[in-house]
Amino acid sequence: MGGARESPRDSGETRHAKDEGYQAQTKTGGPRIQEGQYRRGLQDVERGEKGTRRTARPEQACRGEARRAGGRLTRPCARGDGDICAALRRPERSARRGCAVSENGRVAEHFADRLISAVLARGAPCAVALDPVYSSLPAELTSRVGKTAPVAAELSAILEFSRRVLRVIVSHVPVVKINSAYFERYHADGVSALDELIAEARRLGLLVLADVKRGDVGHTAEMYADACLGWAKGGEVFQTADAVTISGYFGRDGAAPFIESAKRSGKGVFVLVRTSNPSAAHIQDVQALDGRKVHEIVAAQVAQWADADDAIGKCGYSLVGAVVATRNAADARRLREIMPRSIFLVPGYGAQGGRPEDFQPYFCRSGGGALVVAGRSVIFAHSAPAYRDESGNSWEECVERACRDFVADICRVAV
Amino acid sequence: MGGARESPRDSGETRHAKDEGYQAQTKTGGPRIQEGQYRRGLQDVERGEKGTRRTARPEQACRGEARRAGGRLTRPCARGDGDICAALRRPERSARRGCAVSENGRVAEHFADRLISAVLARGAPCAVALDPVYSSLPAELTSRVGKTAPVAAELSAILEFSRRVLRVIVSHVPVVKINSAYFERYHADGVSALDELIAEARRLGLLVLADVKRGDVGHTAEMYADACLGWAKGGEVFQTADAVTISGYFGRDGAAPFIESAKRSGKGVFVLVRTSNPSAAHIQDVQALDGRKVHEIVAAQVAQWADADDAIGKCGYSLVGAVVATRNAADARRLREIMPRSIFLVPGYGAQGGRPEDFQPYFCRSGGGALVVAGRSVIFAHSAPAYRDESGNSWEECVERACRDFVADICRVAV
Repeated sequence: MGGARESPRDSGETRHAKDEGYQAQTKTGGPRIQEGQYRRGLQDVERGEKGTRRTARPEQACRGEARRAGGRLTRPCARGDGDICAALRRPERSARRGCAVSENGRVAEHFADRLISAVLARGAPCAVALDPVYSSLPAELTSRVGKTAPVAAELSAILEFSRRVLRVIVSHVPVVKINSAYFERYHADGVSALDELIAEARRLGLLVLADVKRGDVGHTAEMYADACLGWAKGGEVFQTADAVTISGYFGRDGAAPFIESAKRSGKGVFVLVRTSNPSAAHIQDVQALDGRKVHEIVAAQVAQWADADDAIGKCGYSLVGAVVATRNAADARRLREIMPRSIFLVPGYGAQGGRPEDFQPYFCRSGGGALVVAGRSVIFAHSAPAYRDESGNSWEECVERACRDFVADICRVAV
Repeated sequence: MGGARESPRDSGETRHAKDEGYQAQTKTGGPRIQEGQYRRGLQDVERGEKGTRRTARPEQACRGEARRAGGRLTRPCARGDGDICAALRRPERSARRGCAVSENGRVAEHFADRLISAVLARGAPCAVALDPVYSSLPAELTSRVGKTAPVAAELSAILEFSRRVLRVIVSHVPVVKINSAYFERYHADGVSALDELIAEARRLGLLVLADVKRGDVGHTAEMYADACLGWAKGGEVFQTADAVTISGYFGRDGAAPFIESAKRSGKGVFVLVRTSNPSAAHIQDVQALDGRKVHEIVAAQVAQWADADDAIGKCGYSLVGAVVATRNAADARRLREIMPRSIFLVPGYGAQGGRPEDFQPYFCRSGGGALVVAGRSVIFAHSAPAYRDESGNSWEECVERACRDFVADICRVAV
């Protein structure tokens, strides 16, 4: 079980690149102007529209602006994260707020604060989904063993590919989202590889979202929370991700065990509110008697959990986020209103067909509050003619160029 | 990865106790009258109410009786499984129906036929949920290492306990339901232990339901289906469960990859329709504009998938089942009407507070169509004063007595 655990002494605390480092040149030497623009945009917001510095805490500002009417917010949370940077520089004022004990027993920073810091440091509200499939890997990694590789060789190639992708994307995005399915397929060895990959990503300074979409209640949900968000016994600590995705279909009984675990360990939880697949509408968009769609009812519950005093970080956002991927801009705006405290995890960029402008409604007006995810269009960029022709034979260069284009696209619409 | 895989030659095909063996005396020598009654009840149904033998195929009988009105069935599927036994004895008439290729390349029997055969063989429409928690294990298994056992010793005790529970329950119930969370908590070693346990359960002749409640779409769902329902490459085959539980929140996109995988391999899929936890109502019982509750809308989708021609076995039931655990009898009856082809997996007996009579509405009038699950009340029976006092120090005897009581309770209400 060695690969899965570590002693507290060796625990790989997540190290984020310092804010100053965000302008470092990329491996391929390309300009980082879009990321800079994103950052300057947030700084403009921080100074306020008329150049006067805000003093209200971000969550107070947000609460001050938002007026509830029949359970809904009548105005969006815009500017609610206006002084994020200032808030993050402030010393801790409350023992309850933004403070938790991490896997290794040290006090861990609040998840939302860590995430927002990382987004600002990289200048990119973006995550890469690392969902590796053997048959889609670059030929360089599979040609030695070929399509009929033994399963162990297949997994080994997947792990090598994944590690190298991490090393490319770490300069561009703050977060890697890993879907456990692609590793669970290989049973115990796959889970072992996933643990190694999570540890490596955190060592590199990436935040890791375990996209496991777990769903259960009570004791079973506690076990899943242990599995995904970490637990310790004696000197043994399980290395885990920084946040997890979960189902919202069970209501509070399904979410609470994950949220409580996250509060204790400085981790985050993203609840599935509206998924991007075509058939999602058949259940998630069903209209209830009170006029709301089912996903809005789930969203209202998420907002309640997210709004708990001990769930909100110094930045004003909550450790309870939401997976939101409607293709309907009006729905997206409504969800932004319903869940002003939640950071949205928004898949759909690139291979899933989402255009950059489709992602605008997910962001608060300050440019915060959402994390857009690109998957295949980045990690398998070697198979896209545009990148392959441009970069010659290096698949990693393709990944890097695709990643930069992705970040630039999102920064353009986020601010 | 050895523990997780096997060569096709060694593959442990599920072996069910022969029908003749169902009356074998139990380890503790107690009478099996309730199981016999359950079986005789089904035989009565098989002969028909007036003693005339039916000739219609069970699914035709069911279709003949059921009339759709506005998308709903106006009459329950009762008697739809009337000639199950006869149907199961018939040779295969259709290449498409009830025929699939199993993990080891042989033609596998249809999941619903295997399940119904196993239920009849044991005379019990019952499953035991094996969700082991170290702190609840019998002292005999933990006293050597105590509460502060190293994690490896904890997992080892859990595995020993689980194996011994399997050996006790195999004479009484046809199915063991294992929730992966309790093993995933131990990462790779836990997954390895789970694989061993699944293999052992199948060797003993139990059907295994992997209660993983996975939920995703597209390629990711295919990966989960591989992980849970098995896949093979070259000579390597992953040993997996006979059926899996999945989320229904994604609509068809989330279910289809699992259902297609199950069709190919003779496995089953149970879709979460209505869960038993108190807060489930906040989402699952929301009423839509057309008057239906959200869980009924999910149920209608399940019914559609279950009703596909290539999803139905010789017994008339589908490989697409449903997890149904409402505490509302009217809801249960309505769901039975909406999903006449689906076998219901019904948790809630015992520790969750369900009384035997609460489970009656889940069954078709013939006594088929549902599988009731007991968990803690059986596997941790050693901590219930009634069983401990009666059995002295043997925790396995407590498990056996609790299991027999559970089966007797359910057989009493099922027929």
